[in-house]
Amino acid sequence: MNRVDAPVGPARLLHVDPARLMQRLGALGEIDRKADGSCCRLALTGADRIGRDMVVGWMRDAGLSVQVDQIGNIFGVRQGREDLEPVMTGSHIDTVATGGLYDGAYGVVAGLEAIAALDRAHRSTRRPIAVAVFTNEEGVRFQPDMMGSLVFSGQLPLAEALAAQAADGAVLGEELVQIGYAGVVPCGQLRPHAFVELHIEQGPVLDREGGVLGAVEDLQGISWQEVTVVGVANHAGTTPMNMRMDAGYCAAEIAVFVRALAERMADGQVATVGSIRLSPNLVNVIAREAVLSIDLRNTDDTRLAAAEAALARHLGELAAAQGVRVSVRQLARSAAVRFDPGVLAVIEGVARDLARPIRRMTSGAGHDAQMISAVSPTAMIFVPSVGGVSHNPREYTHPEHLELGANVLVNTLIRLSET
Amino acid sequence: MNRVDAPVGPARLLHVDPARLMQRLGALGEIDRKADGSCCRLALTGADRIGRDMVVGWMRDAGLSVQVDQIGNIFGVRQGREDLEPVMTGSHIDTVATGGLYDGAYGVVAGLEAIAALDRAHRSTRRPIAVAVFTNEEGVRFQPDMMGSLVFSGQLPLAEALAAQAADGAVLGEELVQIGYAGVVPCGQLRPHAFVELHIEQGPVLDREGGVLGAVEDLQGISWQEVTVVGVANHAGTTPMNMRMDAGYCAAEIAVFVRALAERMADGQVATVGSIRLSPNLVNVIAREAVLSIDLRNTDDTRLAAAEAALARHLGELAAAQGVRVSVRQLARSAAVRFDPGVLAVIEGVARDLARPIRRMTSGAGHDAQMISAVSPTAMIFVPSVGGVSHNPREYTHPEHLELGANVLVNTLIRLSET
Repeated sequence: MNRVDAPVGPARLLHVDPARLMQRLGALGEIDRKADGSCCRLALTGADRIGRDMVVGWMRDAGLSVQVDQIGNIFGVRQGREDLEPVMTGSHIDTVATGGLYDGAYGVVAGLEAIAALDRAHRSTRRPIAVAVFTNEEGVRFQPDMMGSLVFSGQLPLAEALAAQAADGAVLGEELVQIGYAGVVPCGQLRPHAFVELHIEQGPVLDREGGVLGAVEDLQGISWQEVTVVGVANHAGTTPMNMRMDAGYCAAEIAVFVRALAERMADGQVATVGSIRLSPNLVNVIAREAVLSIDLRNTDDTRLAAAEAALARHLGELAAAQGVRVSVRQLARSAAVRFDPGVLAVIEGVARDLARPIRRMTSGAGHDAQMISAVSPTAMIFVPSVGGVSHNPREYTHPEHLELGANVLVNTLIRLSET
Repeated sequence: MNRVDAPVGPARLLHVDPARLMQRLGALGEIDRKADGSCCRLALTGADRIGRDMVVGWMRDAGLSVQVDQIGNIFGVRQGREDLEPVMTGSHIDTVATGGLYDGAYGVVAGLEAIAALDRAHRSTRRPIAVAVFTNEEGVRFQPDMMGSLVFSGQLPLAEALAAQAADGAVLGEELVQIGYAGVVPCGQLRPHAFVELHIEQGPVLDREGGVLGAVEDLQGISWQEVTVVGVANHAGTTPMNMRMDAGYCAAEIAVFVRALAERMADGQVATVGSIRLSPNLVNVIAREAVLSIDLRNTDDTRLAAAEAALARHLGELAAAQGVRVSVRQLARSAAVRFDPGVLAVIEGVARDLARPIRRMTSGAGHDAQMISAVSPTAMIFVPSVGGVSHNPREYTHPEHLELGANVLVNTLIRLSET
C-alpha cells in the first residue's frame, strides 16, 4: 500500500449501528454457551456450522454475493462502481474451547455493520468491499492455526490442510463437507487490493492507557519449542548431588536461562516457559524426564533467530554438563510481519478525523491479517480489552470501544476503496 | 547401648535356613501379586490382614507368645533365661501400591528365621528375643508413615493415629477392628533392651561396591516443603519481561537455588525439587500459579535447619523481587538420627567373625528403627539392592545377600541378648 500517499476520503464520516453490532455479537455467543459463560465454537463442529449459517444469512440479507472457497473461507462481497480487486476486511468466528464473545467474531460482525452503514447512507464505493470469515483461526481442533488465511495466501497447500486430522480422528476435509462448507472457489482467487482486520487487543496495553485505539504496525515472529530432558530417576535421599542426572533441575535451569536471555537481549525480546511436566513428579524422587515449552518472540526475525541459536547452544552445553539427553521439537514458527505504512496512514487519518487518539503498537498474538499481508497491503486496528483478558469467558471490551473501532473500520474501508 | 564394651558371644556362629527364608518371602509376596509382578499390601487392607495372619501363624508354629498392641503392632516373643527386657528385631509387612518382595518383609521373615536357627541349635538366650511387625510403615493409605513405631515410641498419640483417615474415608481405628488387629497391649509396654532392624538398602551404594553389607550409623533428617507461588497469568507475547509476575519462572528459580544451596553446603546436604505443577501450564500463557516440592536432607540437624533457614530467606527475597505471593506448607519433618555405637560395634563384630566386609553408611530412607531409637539403643543392618531399585516390582536382592544379612542378624541378637 506504499502507493497510497494520503487518505483520499469524503468529508462526511459514516457511523455504524452500535445496537445491532452488540446484538449480533450476542447472537453468535449464544450458539454454544457453557454454564460458565464461555463460548465454544471449535472449528468445523456443529456449533461452527450454526455460526457460519448465521453470518451467511446476514450477508444474504445485506444483498452481498457470497463465495465459499475450497478451504471453507467465506466471503460476502458488496459491488463497487468499478470491477476492481476488492478492499477486504474480516476475521474468524471459531473460538477456543473456553472463548469469549469478541475474539474474531467482532471483526466479522463489525465488517458487516460497516457495509450496513454504507447502505444506510446510500454510499457507493469505487472498489468492491468484501467481508471475510477465515476457517480455523484458533487451531484448537486442527493444526496449524490461521489455517484458512494460510491456504488463502498460498503459504499452506490446500491438500495438506484438507488432510489435517483432529485428536478424535476427524479429517478436516470430511468435516468441511459434513457442515456444508466445502466450497468450490479456488483459494486466493478473490485477491484483495488491501486488507484491514479489526480485533480486540487480547493484551493490557490499550486498556492501561485509558482506552485509546491501536494501529498495529507489526506482529512478533513466534518460535515455540518443546524441550524434552531425559535423565535418571533416583532416590532424593541417597543420591549424592554430584551423581545426579536430574531432569527436573535441568528444566528449571533452562527456564532461568531463557528469562535471563530475554532480559539481556532487551528491545522487545520476550521468552516464556509456560509449561513444565516432570516424571514421575514426586517429592522424593529425582525426576527422570522433563518436558517443557519455550515461547520466544521478537518483532525482528534476525534477533529471534539469534535467540533461538543462543538457546540451542545452551541446551547442548547443559546436556553435556549434566549427563542428560536433550531433544527439541519445533511446535510452531512464524516470521515477524511488518504491516503496510500506507494502510496504517489511512487508519490513523480516520482516527484523527474522528478526533480519537490512536497509537502504533505490536501485536503479541497471531492473526489472519499476518497471513494476508503476504499477498496484499495489510494492517490491523485494535480496540482495548479490559485487563487484557482473552480466551476466557471474562473477555470484555466496553461497547463504546466496540462502536468506535467499527467506525474507524468503515471509514478506513471507504478511503481504501477509492485508491 | 554405650554400656556394651565388647561383643560377648559364643565361639560358634549360627546360620539360618536360606530355603525357608526365600519360601516365606515368596509366600508373603503371593498374597496380592499384580500382573506386573508387584505386591500390593496397603496397610490395614484385606491383603495386609492375610499377611499378618500368615506371620502370626509362623510365630505360633515357632512357639512364640504373640502380643498385639493398641495400634496393631505384632510382637512374637521367645523366652529368655531371665525375665528381662527383650532384644527386639523386626520391620513391617505393608507395601506401597507397586511394591517388591523385600522392603519390610525381609526384616520380619529374617527375624523369625533367626529364632528358628536358635531353636534348631537348642540355644537359649539370657534375654527374651522379640520379632516385631510394625503397623503402616509405608504411609500410603494413612499418614503419617512409620505410624506403628511412632506410636510405640511415644512420638504420636494413639488417639491421633486411630483417627487417621484415608482418602476413601476409611478410619484407621475402624479398619484395625475390621481386620482383627485392634490389640489390647498398651503401646510401648514391651520396651526393648536393644533394637536391630535388617532391611534392604533401597539405594545403590552397597550394590556398586560389589555387594558388601552396611552397618547403618545414621539416618538423614528430612524436611519436605510444598511451596506455592501465586503470580499473574498473562499473554506470553504481549507482556513485557519487566511487567511479569511469572509463577513458573519463580518455581524454576527456586529449583536452581536449592541445587546451588546443596552444592555450596556440601558435606552430605542434598536437595531435590522432584515435583512442579504449573497452572494453566500452557505454552503461550505466563503461569499464574506454581506448586513445587522441596526435599532437603542432612544427617546433621543443625545444618538441615540452616538449609531450611537459607531457603526461607530466599523465598522472601524472591517474593519481594518478583511481586508474587509465596506460601509454604511443611509436608514432613523428621530429625536426623544417630544410631547406637554399641549396637553398631556388635553388628560389625559379627560380620568380622563371619569374614564378610561391612561398611558404615547413612540411610537415605526412613525406617521404623529411627523411631525406636528414641526409646532404645538401636542400629540397622543393610543388604545390597540390585541397582538400588525399590518400591517397584523389579526390587531385587541376591539370595546369598539375603542369607548373609539374616546370619549377621541372628548372631547380633544372640550377642545383644547376653548384655
